[in-house]
Formats: sequence, structure tokens, C-alpha cells
Amino acid sequence: MTESVHMKKGLTHLALCFLLSNWPHAALAATDPLPSWNDTAPKKAIIAFVEKVTKEGSPDFVPPAERIATFDNDGTLWAEQPAYFQILFALDRVKALASEHPEWKTKSPFNKLLSTPKEERVPVTEHELMEIIVVAHSGMTTEEFEKTVRDWIATAKHPKTGKLYTEMVYQPMLELLAFLRANSFKTFIVSGGGIEFMRPWVEKVYGIPPEQVVGSSGKLKFEMRDGKPILLKLPEVDFIDDKEGKPVGIQTHIGRRPIAAFGNSDGDLQMLQWTMAGSGARFALLVHHDDAEREWAYDRESQFGKLDKAWDEARAKDWTVVSMKSDWKKVFPFE
Amino acid sequence: MTESVHMKKGLTHLALCFLLSNWPHAALAATDPLPSWNDTAPKKAIIAFVEKVTKEGSPDFVPPAERIATFDNDGTLWAEQPAYFQILFALDRVKALASEHPEWKTKSPFNKLLSTPKEERVPVTEHELMEIIVVAHSGMTTEEFEKTVRDWIATAKHPKTGKLYTEMVYQPMLELLAFLRANSFKTFIVSGGGIEFMRPWVEKVYGIPPEQVVGSSGKLKFEMRDGKPILLKLPEVDFIDDKEGKPVGIQTHIGRRPIAAFGNSDGDLQMLQWTMAGSGARFALLVHHDDAEREWAYDRESQFGKLDKAWDEARAKDWTVVSMKSDWKKVFPFE
Repeated sequence: MTESVHMKKGLTHLALCFLLSNWPHAALAATDPLPSWNDTAPKKAIIAFVEKVTKEGSPDFVPPAERIATFDNDGTLWAEQPAYFQILFALDRVKALASEHPEWKTKSPFNKLLSTPKEERVPVTEHELMEIIVVAHSGMTTEEFEKTVRDWIATAKHPKTGKLYTEMVYQPMLELLAFLRANSFKTFIVSGGGIEFMRPWVEKVYGIPPEQVVGSSGKLKFEMRDGKPILLKLPEVDFIDDKEGKPVGIQTHIGRRPIAAFGNSDGDLQMLQWTMAGSGARFALLVHHDDAEREWAYDRESQFGKLDKAWDEARAKDWTVVSMKSDWKKVFPFE
Repeated sequence: MTESVHMKKGLTHLALCFLLSNWPHAALAATDPLPSWNDTAPKKAIIAFVEKVTKEGSPDFVPPAERIATFDNDGTLWAEQPAYFQILFALDRVKALASEHPEWKTKSPFNKLLSTPKEERVPVTEHELMEIIVVAHSGMTTEEFEKTVRDWIATAKHPKTGKLYTEMVYQPMLELLAFLRANSFKTFIVSGGGIEFMRPWVEKVYGIPPEQVVGSSGKLKFEMRDGKPILLKLPEVDFIDDKEGKPVGIQTHIGRRPIAAFGNSDGDLQMLQWTMAGSGARFALLVHHDDAEREWAYDRESQFGKLDKAWDEARAKDWTVVSMKSDWKKVFPFE
């Protein structure tokens, strides 16, 4: 490294470090770290929690290494209607590959996907969805699948809004992720969605690197092909990171109990229970989809993102519940 | 946060940031980052690699987020003779629990472990070892198992040296881990050992947090016990992170191909192949145990840490091979 390049790098780091060092103060006093949140109870609860766990010498202080925050993806960081976006991906993929698989027309769960119009609810479970994806892509390498996801996510449009799926992320949650990271939290995704479906784009969209993504997965096999090592996708589901699976996924991938967890549905209940059962300061939040105008309104009866048991438990245990309608100034970045 | 606490924290951060910003320069010119390494080829190769991937504007530059380095544990970060230390843990545990399990005396692989003196080679495979551990601890919660490991690692002594196992780590490798992290590498363990066996102590010993540990594992089950959520250990092996399993473990947990990998045996060959097959600058290193005086001398014929195929491939492909005898000034911190 030449001296001038080195100096430049040093100064940039210094400037950045100076900003970061002053962030808690600046964020809470001078600049609003959560500008898309209304000044209602959830925003106050988030800021109070972050203040107390980062305040050195306080009884609630948590060392930076233990500031683990986990986020569900579908319905918590991005939208999930008219179906999990991964179902729409699977539908496009199954259609693209259907000519090579005439048996899919009559074989469950493929036939359910193929016979349902895009705007309608597809009656598949998380497990069936993963089964469709792993079977449809078996024989592909992990690199080939990654390219398939990248190509789709860069071009596919949402059936209602016509936006890219990566534009349908929640602006308040992007701000929350950044706020937590600025306060030395390590942010993880813990989603029922496929781990290999999320990794290609979440770093750019959420600032969450691939190694901080926990999700459902298919089995992989290492082998040499023409002297080159590859990882082959097998037609077998390995793990479903949903409901009771979420604490298991957290333990397997993170090995440390989160101190804060964010979800929106019954699929997140066990993650929130697991998070809240640890000692010391804890935080659990549910996003309630009650804004039919700017987004969608659904809860107890929804096929995707059903919020029923988790809602009751949140009320009983005084967890933070966000009303998208009342607590968010803005839902999507494009508004 | 009060203003004085805030100022103090800000200043400490600033001082630290200043040091880190200047580290590449300081480390390579003024202070030796690898003082326990002799000035032989491996040390030069490590420093040359780190210099080129961190030099902005260079064709070999790698952005910090992609600076993933993976380390085997047994035989690479700590010793592995007369047997993997986890086998000695399993032996102590099986003996402690044997009175409740009279069937183990005649049942494989338990009988092999129980009938072998501690100083002799125990003829169990990685899979049998994990099987013993998961079966012996099934019904325990993850928290109970963590406590068992913490208690053992804090007190158990190595049969030959009488040292704590965590003292039998390689000083040159500790320096290498710190040097890589100071240059914005993210360091991971990728070991055939049990993930839950390593996590309780690796953060303190190696500076590697639990979420950056990849290892073999047993199945877990979430359930509520007396209204409290627990993760129960099931008597079933879930994943063996050895040989062909290592690239699979890397993909599952990290989701990004390492640019540098460090091992010592045939169990690491596929991890090194996978690492070296990516594009751009790459680094692979094998530790060769050839120092019978300060440590142990073994390679092609060893039961633990057999170095045969990987040795040949390293020679053929010009990977870096470290002679513990010639390239390390010091082996253990206690010397």
C-alpha cells in the first residue's frame, strides 16, 4: 500500500469511526434514527430498549458480542401477499421447467402450484414449498441456483404493484436494522424461506451478510466434476426453519440466544418465546398488517402470515405490537 | 448515556479506530504480527497474501465482507494426540454415565471407548464419536450440555502434558487469527468436532464467536417444559462436518466461499479444494506435525489427523505447508 493510499484509507476510517462513536448520542438526541416511525409506543419502546442495553454500567447493559437480533423475513422485512414471494418464484420456476417434467401436472404438491392462478392463494405448506423448490432444482449446483435467484429477483415484478420484490421491503424496518447495527447489534434473518433463496440479495437490500441468514434448506452433496469441486443440490428437504424450527435454526446457526426478535405471524411465536425466556433485558416485536390502503390487512384468518396465537401471547405478555397503519409514517421506500 | 460516559466511550472508540486504521502499515512495517513464526516461506506467503487482498486498487483486492477465512480445529488450532480431545471428553462422560447404561459395556461404539485405555488409540470414527456424544446426552437441554462442556473444559487435564486442553492451542495460529481479523477477515472454525462442544470456549480462547463455528451436530427439538421453552438434544446425529461435509457445512452456515482455509489433515482436503476453486486470490495452508519434541510427529499413517492425500495435493498444487519444527518458533503459549 502506498503512503497516500494508506493515509486516505486511514482518514476515511477515522471519519467513519468518529461518526459511529458518536452515533448513540447523535441518533437519540440530534437526528431521528427511525424517521419513518410515528412517535408512538413501539418507537419509544425500541429506543428505550436500545438505550438501556447499550448504557455501560447500567444493570441492563449487554456486551456488544451478545447483542443478537433476529428478524423474520416474509411479512416482517418485506411483504408476503398475495403469497410468500418465494411461492411466486417457485411458480415461475416450475412453469419454466414443466415441459421437462410432465409428471408434475398430476403430482402433489406441484399440481397445486400449477393449477392456481397467480393472484389466488396457493394451498401449499412451508414444507411443500421447500419440497417443490428442492425437487425442481435438484441436480443444479449451488452456484447455478444462486444465478437463477439473482436473475429472477432482478427482473420479476409483483403481480399487484408491478414493483420489483426487493422494492417491497418495509422502510421502517430498514431503519430499525440500521439503528440496531449502529448500536453494535448483529442482525440476523431467521425465516421459513429458503436460505439459498435469500442469500443472493439480502446483503444489498438489508445489509445482512449471507452468513447471518438462517432459513429452510435442502440437502447438498460435495463432488468433483471434471476435476472441479461442486456442491450439488439434492431433491431432499433438510430443514424447515419455521415455528418450532426457528429456535432450532437459531441454535444451530447462531449458537447464542437473541436478545431481541422481530416477527409478524404464528410462525415466529417460538422464536419470540425462545428470545424472551433468556435472562436480562429482552425485546419482542410483532408487526400487525392492518393497513389495507398502503399494504394489506390480515391476521387471524390469513393463509400467509397468520397472526393468531402469537397475537394472543403478545397481548398477554405485553410484547410490542406495531400497527402498520398507526405506527408507520411510511410503509414502502417507493411511496 | 451521560455526556461524560459518552465522551469516554467516543474517545476509546476513536483511539481503537485510529490503531485499526493504521494496522496494515504498522503491522507489516513496524511490529511483527506473527512473532512466533520463523521468517521462512509460510510466514512470507501469509503476509504477501494478506497484503495483496487488502491493497485497495490492486487486481487482487477483496472487499472486507468477502474476506472469509476458515480454520479446522483439531490439529490446526489445538493438538489432537493421543486422540481428538473430544474423544477424551466423550470417554469421561460415558464413564460418568455408565452406571445408568449397563448396555454400553457390550454395545458398539460405546464398548470400544470404554475398553480402550486413555493413552491408547480409540478405534472410533467421527460419526461414531458424534453418535456416542448425542446418545449419551440425549434428553439434556442445550443449556445443560453447555454447562457440562464448560465444567469439563475448565478442569480436565491432558493425559501427557497435564495442561488444560485450552492451553494446548498453537501460539502461531492464535497470532494468525488475530492478524487476519486485524485485516478485516472474518475467521470461522470449520471442524469435524461437535459444534456444541466448541462453542462454549472458542470465543475466549480463539476470539471466534459461537455464530462463526461450524461443526458436527445432533438433532434438536423445541418444546415447552413447565411453560418454559427448551431445546432438547435428541439421540440422532444430524450432520458430520468432516471431509466432503466441510464444504457443505461452509455453504450451509456461511453461504460464501472462503478465500483462505487452514487445515492439517485429509479431513480438510475438500475444504481446501473448495476454497481454492473460487476466482481471485486464494490461500490454502496445511500444518504438518513433524515436531516430536515440542508436540507430536505424524502424518500418512496416523489415526487422528492423517495427512496423506491432502499432503500429495498440497505438494502438487503448491499450497503452503507449515513444518511445525522449522517454521514455528514456539508451539504452545506455555512454552
